[in-house]
Amino acid sequence: MPANDIEWSDSEKKLARAAFDKAYEREINALLQTVRDRSNEIAEPEELWKLHDFLSAKRHELDGKYDYRYSFLLFVFAQLVKDGWLSLSELDGLDASKRAKVAALTRM
Amino acid sequence: MPANDIEWSDSEKKLARAAFDKAYEREINALLQTVRDRSNEIAEPEELWKLHDFLSAKRHELDGKYDYRYSFLLFVFAQLVKDGWLSLSELDGLDASKRAKVAALTRM
Repeated sequence: MPANDIEWSDSEKKLARAAFDKAYEREINALLQTVRDRSNEIAEPEELWKLHDFLSAKRHELDGKYDYRYSFLLFVFAQLVKDGWLSLSELDGLDASKRAKVAALTRM
Repeated sequence: MPANDIEWSDSEKKLARAAFDKAYEREINALLQTVRDRSNEIAEPEELWKLHDFLSAKRHELDGKYDYRYSFLLFVFAQLVKDGWLSLSELDGLDASKRAKVAALTRM
């Protein structure tokens, strides 16, 4: 359900890009730490392929989730807030209706 | 170039299986250490995907290389010796002609 009717000001675009990038950085750093931890814990050779499978799935998930098209961005932000990679307060520079939409979507 | 005409005695099969498994264990343990080292060295998020690409390629390579069909086994052993995962002396229980073939293949 893309939202093509939403206008984004230049300052909103700037804030959105920064919030998006920050969430991505947080999530990928957490993933990197998981890879480090899991690779250190591996006892059986075959577990290396399980780690590879896990990383393949995560890459696919992140490729789909981090979609910067403006028509999808409020949905993306809501998901990132739900997943804990972004806080609602980091979107404070967006106009009231956008923030209300994201907040509502996080409760769905 | 499979070699279907080669007979394998039970004791040779036992030794071959052990050598094959030992080489695999060595190579995957080295790969695991590489993954640990590389994951610890990653500074930029995108390098995590390079590590994933590397692991995907290695998995594909190992899937192809560790082929336990008897008609291919002497070629497999020669490759493992060339790659340093197996020493010729670990194949000492094979008959003289098999050992000679592996030794010749390692020089190709």
